[in-house]
Formats: sequence, C-alpha cells, structure tokens
Amino acid sequence: MAYPGFGAYGSYSGQMPRMQMAVRQPMPGAVPNMSYAGYSGYSAYSGTYSAAADPMWIYFTAVAGQDGEVDAEELQMCLMHSGISGTYSPFSLETCRIMISMLDRDYTGKMGFNEFKELWAALNAWKQNFMMIDQDRSGTVELHALTQVIAAMGYRLSPQTLAAIVKRYSKNGRIFFDDYVACCVKLRTLTDFFRRRDNMQQGFVNFVYDDFLQCTMAI
Amino acid sequence: MAYPGFGAYGSYSGQMPRMQMAVRQPMPGAVPNMSYAGYSGYSAYSGTYSAAADPMWIYFTAVAGQDGEVDAEELQMCLMHSGISGTYSPFSLETCRIMISMLDRDYTGKMGFNEFKELWAALNAWKQNFMMIDQDRSGTVELHALTQVIAAMGYRLSPQTLAAIVKRYSKNGRIFFDDYVACCVKLRTLTDFFRRRDNMQQGFVNFVYDDFLQCTMAI
Repeated sequence: MAYPGFGAYGSYSGQMPRMQMAVRQPMPGAVPNMSYAGYSGYSAYSGTYSAAADPMWIYFTAVAGQDGEVDAEELQMCLMHSGISGTYSPFSLETCRIMISMLDRDYTGKMGFNEFKELWAALNAWKQNFMMIDQDRSGTVELHALTQVIAAMGYRLSPQTLAAIVKRYSKNGRIFFDDYVACCVKLRTLTDFFRRRDNMQQGFVNFVYDDFLQCTMAI
Repeated sequence: MAYPGFGAYGSYSGQMPRMQMAVRQPMPGAVPNMSYAGYSGYSAYSGTYSAAADPMWIYFTAVAGQDGEVDAEELQMCLMHSGISGTYSPFSLETCRIMISMLDRDYTGKMGFNEFKELWAALNAWKQNFMMIDQDRSGTVELHALTQVIAAMGYRLSPQTLAAIVKRYSKNGRIFFDDYVACCVKLRTLTDFFRRRDNMQQGFVNFVYDDFLQCTMAI
C-alpha cells in the first residue's frame, strides 16, 4: 500500500530538507507515539512540582477565575499575556477553540491547568518548528514548507491529502503562523481520535455516523 | 439502537418546538436526501437561464477575476457585497474557507459560479432558519435553539454529540450567526462525506486513515 498512513504514527523516517535535524528522531510537535499526554520533545513539565511556583500558573489563574478552567476567549487572552506568539500575531479565537477541543475529553468546552500545560508544551514545539522554516521572520512560510513539516512530524499522508491540507490553511499563497498552528492542532486531534478507535493499529476504523460527527464537528 | 443517526438522513420526523412548520417536511437547509446538488427547500435557480442575467453574476464576476473562480478571501468580499448577511455581521474568513471546502470536490481551494449559486441557496435556507429563532434580531440565539434547528434539519444525533457541537460553536453562552452558519456548513459537508462512503446506507463506514484526514482536515 502506497500510503500506509498509520504505519508511521509518530515515527520519523526521513530528514527534513534544509533542516539540521537528527535522523530517526521525531520532530518536536510530532504526534505522540504512545499516550496522548506523553508529548515527545518537550519534558519541561514532567515530574512533581508546585503549581503555584509554575510561571504559567500566573497567566492561567489571572483569567481562569473561580472555576479553575478557561474557555476559548479566556485561553486567547491567557496566551496573549503569556507572549507565546512572540513576534507572530496573537492566536485567533477560532484557533483557540480548536486548542480547547484538542484536550477537552469530557466536552465541557473548557480547559484546566494540566491541559493548559499540555497545550503549552505542544505550542512551544510547533512554534520551534515554524521558526525553523520561517527564516526571514515574516510570520509566513511557503506552502511546500508546511508539507515538509507535516512529513517531518511523522504523518504519512498521500500527496492529494497534503495538497488539500495546504490549500485549506493558506492565505494568498502563504501559510501564516496562526493557520499553521490550527493545522497542527487538527492533525494531532484527528489522528488521535482515529488511533484510539483503531484497536488493531491497522490503519482503518469502522465509524458509526454519530461518533464520526462527534469527533469531527468539535474540531 | 437509540441513535440510528443515519436512518433519518435528511428526513424530518418531528416538529420543531415553537415554530410554525409543516410536519414531515424537511426544514430548509436540511441535508439533501438524494444528490448533493439537489438542495431541498430552495429552487430559485433551477432550470435554464443566462448567467449574465443572473443578479448574482454581478457580485461574482466583480471579484472572481479572469479565472472565473473565487478563493476564500474573494468569497468573503463577494458575500459582503451581496448583502446576504443582512443585519447580521459579515462572514468571517474562516467560515468562508469552509464554505469553499463544502463544494470544492476537486480540492482547488476555489469556487466557480455554479458552486457559488449552490452555496447561495444553502445560505438563504440557513439564514431563514436562523431568523425564525432569532426573534429579537439580536444576531444571536440560545444554545438549545441550535440543537432544535439541527434536529429539525433532519440530523439524528445523540444528546452527547449535540452538546459537544453546541459548546464548540458558542461564544459567551450564545450562538452567533456566523458560527451557526459554520456549524451548518460542517454538518452538511461531513454528513455528505460519510454518506458517499456508506454504500449500503447502514450508518457506518470503514475509513482508511488517509481518507479520513482528507475528509476532515479540509473542513
């Protein structure tokens, strides 16, 4: 089969052109190989620690309020205050919504501090990847660069699927940081949905209509 | 099975509370029952006609340029000039992108005039539905109203899926017109993807990973 897709979940079997990367190491931001929570390439928040001593706790609690969770609007504000976008434009509300969906396993539409940290780790990895290809720091990259990043993150997709994805997330022939992150969030979430249902890890899943919509409408 | 989901593709088996609607008639904007192009509840553009005599042709050609197609940015402009949003806010670029994806069967990321008319028909039907529930013309409706509209359009979804959808498309506990349309576009597109692969119309589909991502990443 030309595009096993699933065979290389999270594995890395090629080097990204024009990038200095270790061969056979997953690129930061790759889809996690084993558990959803175990995010490869970023371990700053593993181990035990006091939440109150965590610098991110300040950003989070400033907007989370009494319920200790953030919705998409609050997340947008939180990420803006944290400065994670750096010189890139702040994240759109739409991208923040799908960030919530990525980790919202109980469909509350909100995110607690642990999920926020998980998101933070993913965002840092994705930003690092983007900065590697955005060499002139314009905040945008060419279309082919996105396909290279997707491949380097371990996704094995057909040229048709890659072309469709790149068209969907482009604006005036370029990929902006916000759209790139939205693309990464969706790829990870949809792949994770799929894998959790693919008990035999064979690359195909029998979806019931309601479950299919529950998976795909929220993201 | 409590939620057959598929059994009622496009059919209407209940009356929408507090709405004056004919029982057993699909609500305008329902997912088409037979062919994708045959949009129920809107037939203004059926039959033969001259494109140049079509009032929409003016809006379309003003932005389409030489290639005779519009991308998401051009579609946004086109819809704004056409005034279809009425007193509601203009459509966001994100919603215009998924409108393109809904009808972009060859993944060019663009839309020709015939597809534009098909979109126009769908938008009019969805707007009509929204205006029925937005009785104070605030441009927003309550969450439960969206679940009622979804059911009235013929989608048979579990309470969990409906709850997830409503959370995803809400802002500060309300549903805005733009998000409502985005929700309608996605419901229709994803249902159509699913149905086209469900050869036996049994309500389940065996997805290969690559095809699953091609379907779901573009929308």
